[in-house]
Amino acid sequence: MMVRTLSALECTRLLTANRVGRLACAKNGRPYIVPLYYAHADNHLYVFSMPGKKIEWMRGNPLVSVQVDERGQGRGWRSVVVDGRYEELPDRVGHKRERDHAWSVLSKHADWWEPGALKPVTPPVSDSAPHVFFRILIDQVSGREASE
Amino acid sequence: MMVRTLSALECTRLLTANRVGRLACAKNGRPYIVPLYYAHADNHLYVFSMPGKKIEWMRGNPLVSVQVDERGQGRGWRSVVVDGRYEELPDRVGHKRERDHAWSVLSKHADWWEPGALKPVTPPVSDSAPHVFFRILIDQVSGREASE
Repeated sequence: MMVRTLSALECTRLLTANRVGRLACAKNGRPYIVPLYYAHADNHLYVFSMPGKKIEWMRGNPLVSVQVDERGQGRGWRSVVVDGRYEELPDRVGHKRERDHAWSVLSKHADWWEPGALKPVTPPVSDSAPHVFFRILIDQVSGREASE
Repeated sequence: MMVRTLSALECTRLLTANRVGRLACAKNGRPYIVPLYYAHADNHLYVFSMPGKKIEWMRGNPLVSVQVDERGQGRGWRSVVVDGRYEELPDRVGHKRERDHAWSVLSKHADWWEPGALKPVTPPVSDSAPHVFFRILIDQVSGREASE
C-alpha cells in the first residue's frame, strides 16, 4: 500500500462528494463520536439534528473533529479529518440568511435528515421546532489516500 | 424509521462481528477522530498501530470514544459507541501475556493492520519495533438500531 497526503483541494472535493461522516465532540477530556449527515458548502459542514448529548456537549465546548472516508480501488481508501468549530444557527432574524442557506444546501440531498428523525417538509420557522440547525466551521483539513 | 436501544449483548455482538471503527481521543478540549482496525475480545478492543498523533494524544489522556456501525435492511443501520480507556501493551516481560493475546486475536483477521503499515509476519519482540500495541478497555457501551 502506498500512502500519500491529500491536497486541500482534494480534501474539499471529498467533503463535497460525501454526506456521511463521524463527528467527535469532547467534555471534560472525554470524547464522544456519533455518525453525522452533513452538506458541505462555503468552508462549513451544515447539519440538521435532533437535540441531545452531542448538541449539549458542543454548546459547552465548540471544538469538534469530523472524519469522512471513502473506499478506493481494492483495499484503497481516502480519509479526511476536519478540525472544526460548532456554530449554532438559531431561528432568529439575525441568522435567517444562514438558516435559509443551510436549508437550501441540505434539501438537495434525499436522505440528509438525522437518523431516526422525521424529515420536515418545510424549514422549521418557530422556536417550538425541536430541530437544531448548526454548522461546523472548518478551521483546518487534512487527508490521506492509500492505494495498492 | 423506528429507532430502538440495543442491549449490552447486542452491542457486544456488533463489536465482535466488525473490525473497522472510528476512534476519538482528545487533547486540551480538542477531539481528533481516526479510522481504526480492531479486534474485540474480553471487554477490550485490541489495536496494532504505527506511532503518531493519536498515540501521543492517548498517552496524554487515555479517555477515548470508539464508534462502530453497520448497515441494516434498506436505510436501516446499527451504531455502537464505546466509552473507553487507552491501555498500552509495551513489549516488556510483565505484559507478555497480554501482548501474545492481542497478537493471537488480531492475527485471526486478514487485514487488521494499520492502514499504510506493513503487516509484520511475527509479533515484534524488541523495543526497536516501531509498532505500538494497545487496547481500549470498554468502560461503557451503548447502541441504537434504526429499521424501516
